[in-house]
Amino acid sequence: MSLSNPDITLAWLSFGAGIISLIVAFLFLKSVLKEDMGTPRMKELSDAIFEGAMAFLNRQYKTLAPIVVIIFIVLFFVPVELFTHGDPEAAAQVQGLAGKLALPVSFLVGAVASAFAGYAGMVSTTKSNARTTNAARTGIRKALTISFRGGAVMGLSVAGLGLAGVSGLYLAFKIPAVINSFAFGASAVALFARIGGGIYTKAADVGADLVGKVEAGIPEDDPRNPAVIADNVGDNVGDTAGMGADLFESYAATTIAAMVIGGSVLKEAGLQMQGILFPLLIGAIGIIASIIATSFVRMSSEDANPQTALNMGLWGTNIITAIAGFFLAKALFGDIGTGIFVGIVAGLLTNVAIGYITELYTSYHKRPAQEIAEASETGAATNLIKGLAVGLKSTVYPIFVIVLAIWASYFFAETGLEGLGIYGIAMAAMGMLSTAGMVVAIDSFGPVADNAGGIAEMAELGPEVRKNTDKLDAVGNTTAAVAKGFAIGSAALTALALFTAYAESAGLAETGIDILNPIVIIGLFLGATVPFLVASFAMEAVGKAAFEMIAEVRRQFREIPGIMEGTGKPDYASCVDISTRAAIKQMVAPGLVAIGTPVVVGFLLGPLALGAVLAGGTASGVLMALFMANAGGAWDNAKKYIETGKLGGKGSEAHKAAVVGDTVGDPFKDTAGPAMNPLIKVMGTISLILAPVVANYNVFGGLF
Amino acid sequence: MSLSNPDITLAWLSFGAGIISLIVAFLFLKSVLKEDMGTPRMKELSDAIFEGAMAFLNRQYKTLAPIVVIIFIVLFFVPVELFTHGDPEAAAQVQGLAGKLALPVSFLVGAVASAFAGYAGMVSTTKSNARTTNAARTGIRKALTISFRGGAVMGLSVAGLGLAGVSGLYLAFKIPAVINSFAFGASAVALFARIGGGIYTKAADVGADLVGKVEAGIPEDDPRNPAVIADNVGDNVGDTAGMGADLFESYAATTIAAMVIGGSVLKEAGLQMQGILFPLLIGAIGIIASIIATSFVRMSSEDANPQTALNMGLWGTNIITAIAGFFLAKALFGDIGTGIFVGIVAGLLTNVAIGYITELYTSYHKRPAQEIAEASETGAATNLIKGLAVGLKSTVYPIFVIVLAIWASYFFAETGLEGLGIYGIAMAAMGMLSTAGMVVAIDSFGPVADNAGGIAEMAELGPEVRKNTDKLDAVGNTTAAVAKGFAIGSAALTALALFTAYAESAGLAETGIDILNPIVIIGLFLGATVPFLVASFAMEAVGKAAFEMIAEVRRQFREIPGIMEGTGKPDYASCVDISTRAAIKQMVAPGLVAIGTPVVVGFLLGPLALGAVLAGGTASGVLMALFMANAGGAWDNAKKYIETGKLGGKGSEAHKAAVVGDTVGDPFKDTAGPAMNPLIKVMGTISLILAPVVANYNVFGGLF
Repeated sequence: MSLSNPDITLAWLSFGAGIISLIVAFLFLKSVLKEDMGTPRMKELSDAIFEGAMAFLNRQYKTLAPIVVIIFIVLFFVPVELFTHGDPEAAAQVQGLAGKLALPVSFLVGAVASAFAGYAGMVSTTKSNARTTNAARTGIRKALTISFRGGAVMGLSVAGLGLAGVSGLYLAFKIPAVINSFAFGASAVALFARIGGGIYTKAADVGADLVGKVEAGIPEDDPRNPAVIADNVGDNVGDTAGMGADLFESYAATTIAAMVIGGSVLKEAGLQMQGILFPLLIGAIGIIASIIATSFVRMSSEDANPQTALNMGLWGTNIITAIAGFFLAKALFGDIGTGIFVGIVAGLLTNVAIGYITELYTSYHKRPAQEIAEASETGAATNLIKGLAVGLKSTVYPIFVIVLAIWASYFFAETGLEGLGIYGIAMAAMGMLSTAGMVVAIDSFGPVADNAGGIAEMAELGPEVRKNTDKLDAVGNTTAAVAKGFAIGSAALTALALFTAYAESAGLAETGIDILNPIVIIGLFLGATVPFLVASFAMEAVGKAAFEMIAEVRRQFREIPGIMEGTGKPDYASCVDISTRAAIKQMVAPGLVAIGTPVVVGFLLGPLALGAVLAGGTASGVLMALFMANAGGAWDNAKKYIETGKLGGKGSEAHKAAVVGDTVGDPFKDTAGPAMNPLIKVMGTISLILAPVVANYNVFGGLF
Repeated sequence: MSLSNPDITLAWLSFGAGIISLIVAFLFLKSVLKEDMGTPRMKELSDAIFEGAMAFLNRQYKTLAPIVVIIFIVLFFVPVELFTHGDPEAAAQVQGLAGKLALPVSFLVGAVASAFAGYAGMVSTTKSNARTTNAARTGIRKALTISFRGGAVMGLSVAGLGLAGVSGLYLAFKIPAVINSFAFGASAVALFARIGGGIYTKAADVGADLVGKVEAGIPEDDPRNPAVIADNVGDNVGDTAGMGADLFESYAATTIAAMVIGGSVLKEAGLQMQGILFPLLIGAIGIIASIIATSFVRMSSEDANPQTALNMGLWGTNIITAIAGFFLAKALFGDIGTGIFVGIVAGLLTNVAIGYITELYTSYHKRPAQEIAEASETGAATNLIKGLAVGLKSTVYPIFVIVLAIWASYFFAETGLEGLGIYGIAMAAMGMLSTAGMVVAIDSFGPVADNAGGIAEMAELGPEVRKNTDKLDAVGNTTAAVAKGFAIGSAALTALALFTAYAESAGLAETGIDILNPIVIIGLFLGATVPFLVASFAMEAVGKAAFEMIAEVRRQFREIPGIMEGTGKPDYASCVDISTRAAIKQMVAPGLVAIGTPVVVGFLLGPLALGAVLAGGTASGVLMALFMANAGGAWDNAKKYIETGKLGGKGSEAHKAAVVGDTVGDPFKDTAGPAMNPLIKVMGTISLILAPVVANYNVFGGLF
């Protein structure tokens, strides 16, 4: 498995594409920072949001640092030779101190890169919000450009760091299974970022809404609401940093898993190096396509639809990636390249299809959300029953899409070459994720637009500005649905790729993982239970944190004189602090469950049970993610539907019932639901690390 | 596989035990009917409930008749030789018309027996309610005896029909895999009974509560409420008929699956007939133990705790079964009998443990329900968030128990003889279900006591009578929790036994069902989705039916003069009719999804995918069943906790919030949750029927 010169050149090419992505991200950031922030009040608000977000990230990463250090040390003592699978040439690569450092260093780079992506995105989105508001004072075109560029900084950072990281570490350590600990580092951080960010944002949101909107009767984003800054910070730490870390993890894990699988299944055909390098090159294509397509995102006039501009960016990326991917696959693999290419297309189409289905079940232009709104007329209970029913049902079509993608990507690759099918599935994941640069850009645009609206409201800029930002915000809600579907779909495919790579690495590929073996059934049951437990932790955390937040907002309304008249200044910082503390404290337990389960099962019950945990956890995790995300989205939009004046409109009994549904849906869709993605991935990456270890050392595995 | 004379004697013995059980049930019914029904008003109310229940059952079975006939005809054309697996001796058994009739006749007997068990239970519980009320006028001791005997009729009918049915058909057709269509008949009927009954009871309950209690402010079971009879009928068709059909199905399916597995894994050891007959004999032991233990259910004095009396019955049954089971296992199997016996004990203990855990998460004497009550103080949204969190978390320990039972029962049997492990797991299921006679008796006692209280209220008998019935009702709530845990746990183990038997019958036992095969992953995903879809149907059905019921009750309050003053008579029949029509109409779609999925997957994707559907469906179905049952139970008791005067008591804001949670929990715990049990079992029984067929005929299975 030595690298020839052309191989090294290709890996450097891919590394270069990652670096280019980071440079373009930096240029976008500079171009955004050149813009004017508007009035002093706007600057003040933007700074408050920026500082709140930074304070949270700093505390979060400071809390994670000891965990990262502990894992770093543990990995130092994991014998790296286990990952060379008896290949003497590979074993030679990891001798001495450099070899000993391969696992822990890759892990550390992954963790730091994930944190860096979080900071980069957070800086750019919080620095873009007031500038977008200011641009919106003169028109929507420029506002779109600024907010999209703000998002693109995040998107291109995520993809660029992912690709450069994997390529660079591969050039350094040469063995895909070893540098997988890069993905483990990324996923450990992503898990906590998702859960912590999710708790933060919903504690602030629920607190701000229940006391501010419902009890005090003041509008959304009103500066008199003490939780308003925390709420705006939450949009960033939840939607931007959380989603970014989540997709960074998917990106890293999928690329490496695909390399592991490619190196294994294409060995006999003499195409091992091609199999390893192809995922990196598809990543490079996707990044270049994303960069090119950012130039498509522009509105032809002030009256144009901003949605169309974003769609152009997304479709442009998909089409360029597909075309270039076809030629690359044919060039590297010849005849069997067609089957591999089908996998990439299946991945790209899965993204589009799940986004569309998500829209179908959650948009208030469609029946499901409207039916929830109608059920609100007989009270909160019927609203909730209907919403739960919609969420449960919404899992069916996305599962069909995922299953079809698995089938097609496997079938066509397998038809080309026996044993290649699982590489086809990994390519579906890779195809989907290669467009992450653009998808994250479009997703991060949403919170910028949302914040921009908030600043317009808080700075009292007048309705014409708000109209422009509202238009962008509405588009942001749709793109958020697309991104959510993307995150879930890609997590599912990533988890499957990790599962397959795990089996290869644990030496289970030949014997198989037979569900008729009771230890496998046991693993399946245990794995399927983990998402339920983690979701429960997440829901409870929001409940507790919101409880504190409600008490604090009530206290301020009661104790600060003149707060309702606008003469007394609310204490924003204390609300920011409550959300921060709660999120940091409550993210630890579910995180440890996620990381601990594979470790305990692996060492206690052995590699077969651990494989089954991954399979059961993935199936159950994906279903729960879809259920919770879509139920929450549908409740949210059922409420918005009533707020458009239907069924009695705002303030009616139906509206009050819909607000209850929306509040229940908040932690569903923004805390527990999104936590499922990093959960199933972190279980996969840690299992892939443990694979050769638990295959040799476990307590009960030999009995079955 | 011919039956020697001693074998035939043993099968007849087991058949005889079933018949004895039916005779004892009949004697109990006669002894109940001898009692006095009390005042004419009490008789009138009891008759109304009886008639409503009968009307529902008649309509339900009439609706199912064509489905049963269609399946009967289809089964007639399934080549029965496929089930003899090339065994010439077995093939000789099923020649000619008698052979052709084996599958359809077994199916029909199963369907009819299930319906008969439903009728028997319904007659006995609805005939016992007023008699229990009347006895409660003089004391609680006799009231307990009558209500328990009413329940015991149901319990002994279920177990007796199950055992006599399986033994009788086995004597007639000799091949366990063939008479499995008895279990299929039972499960098809149970599926519809559970879903239909669940929709009925909750449509009536939600309707009666939301309009009667919340809007009109009249108490529970008030005769002025037009939905009050429908509500009482619902308690019977949901809790008694539904639960009875559910456990009858588990009983039949487990016994047959254990026979199939025993006949296969003990063949080489020369213990094939013992393996086949042992499940029947354990069933016989359990029935005799249940009959003996009914005599333990008595209160020593008027002040004794009725719970203790029921516990005596349950523990008596468990202990007698365990002791007799030990000697039987040793007698039939010698040394390896110990391992098999461990399986039985594991099953008995699983029952006890899951009942205890259910109690822990749902009783209002424990923290989880109390915390939900406390969360109600900040409104319905926080009550719901907390309740969902409790439900999600409550899945963990029961899964641990089930997993431990699988592990222990497999391990000890496998240690005794290689390959025997899966028989051990089947014995865990069988051990658990052997006590069904007593468990169903104790469960059915609950609705009798509940109805008795209702009649006391409606007949205005005064508080001292109500106090006695309330005491029994409170015990009934606890036993209902135990029975719910029993139903879920036994469904899980039954489904696993069916899954194993399916694999044997489809010829997958040697090749295995490898999760690394994409078609298996696809099956796993699809199977795990089915419970979500069926739960969604169930929730929506209740939503729709409750909507109609609310409109009708409101209409009657508005249009019938003097209804609130007690001078105008409400139209009970129209409410009964709404529940009936809605239940019948809405039960069809989810039922067809459950039956259709294995058929479509089997013929389209082949036997591996179908096996995976069973595994995925079982894991996901059990988790959803636990989640929904426990969340619903906890919401219910959180409300009751507040009603004891805590946190402001009845009428407080916290109480109003808790009522919303309880209403959402109703279809969770009594419709969607219980539907999961027959769902996973019916998928298993139909797959077991299809096994040899789809192994030979399918579209895409060969590709993987």
